[in-house]
Amino acid sequence: MEHSEKIGLDKQFEFLRELDKEKSIFRQTYLCNGERKENDAEHAWHLAIMAVLLSDYAEEKIDVLKTVTMLLIHDVVEIDAGDTYAYDEEGKKTQRQREEAAAERIFGILPVEQQKKFRDLWEEFEKCETPEAKFARTMDHIQPIILNDASKGKSWVEHGVHLNQILDRNKRTPEGSKKLWEYAFENLIRPNVDSGKIKNNMKL
Amino acid sequence: MEHSEKIGLDKQFEFLRELDKEKSIFRQTYLCNGERKENDAEHAWHLAIMAVLLSDYAEEKIDVLKTVTMLLIHDVVEIDAGDTYAYDEEGKKTQRQREEAAAERIFGILPVEQQKKFRDLWEEFEKCETPEAKFARTMDHIQPIILNDASKGKSWVEHGVHLNQILDRNKRTPEGSKKLWEYAFENLIRPNVDSGKIKNNMKL
Repeated sequence: MEHSEKIGLDKQFEFLRELDKEKSIFRQTYLCNGERKENDAEHAWHLAIMAVLLSDYAEEKIDVLKTVTMLLIHDVVEIDAGDTYAYDEEGKKTQRQREEAAAERIFGILPVEQQKKFRDLWEEFEKCETPEAKFARTMDHIQPIILNDASKGKSWVEHGVHLNQILDRNKRTPEGSKKLWEYAFENLIRPNVDSGKIKNNMKL
Repeated sequence: MEHSEKIGLDKQFEFLRELDKEKSIFRQTYLCNGERKENDAEHAWHLAIMAVLLSDYAEEKIDVLKTVTMLLIHDVVEIDAGDTYAYDEEGKKTQRQREEAAAERIFGILPVEQQKKFRDLWEEFEKCETPEAKFARTMDHIQPIILNDASKGKSWVEHGVHLNQILDRNKRTPEGSKKLWEYAFENLIRPNVDSGKIKNNMKL
């Protein structure tokens, strides 16, 4: 093996070891069985499968591999920046800055060409302007709704989440897929509003 | 939304809830930090990123999306069949039969066209004959070596693993990528043989 090749592989394997830390970053969402909270690695895996499974529902034609890759790495920055809960308004003020620094450090472990590729994909996800980024974001927003509904609204109840917060957070979710948002709203959100697990302060 | 579309989505979302169980199937490999064992969902996520990151090292040209999809779902059957440890010779005798029944039930949740697509991908991974399946298998075999090495050989030591078992298990790993196997052997296995974390009963 050539020396330059060994150096490249050293960097790639170091990055893979760094990523392992995502398995210890816990989110606010409970697993479907409600037994414990989900971590970033499990979440990203679930999203990647969702993207493959549901890509026909994308609003615009998407490059599925690009979308999946984006989803696999979208939370890498939380290794340094931590998970910012969807309804944590204070945390969200500093989120962007903390995540930028994390992206710099973590993607910086990779060989130069791959640094750029993955950093660009992460930025694209964050900006949420391309068909792939929009669909990826839709997956990222619908997956916790699946888990929250399945775990009998445990996380919604614990945080006293109101319907308007969910609707506000999901303002752009239909941009990735109107149909999937409609399905999620009617089948996973509305029943939890009806049963009081999501607090309702507005007319539905 | 049309009725048939709703029925299809019901099945896809039911499958996504079923998959959530992979987050509770634990493997014998420890996380890099050695603190706890890894589960199937985390493992599959790690493999999927590895495939994207290292695809240039594939022995033959591969369809990366196909490889990634294969890896994302390759352990689905363990929801029913459980994880069979790499060096559990008794468990391996009934593994195939247990996993076939699991594939039938779990992929059977999906709409008919997707049942076939995912079941076929799983079979392709199991048969390990195509370039994608061979590379996927190489990822599946190298990832636990990364984790075992990083966690100071914890799982190797606990199970008293011998070098010949590792070499036997990895006989076909170079078929996916000679270079990656060479790298893993020289940098992640040999040092652990030298330090005694892997028992050596043969001449190296």
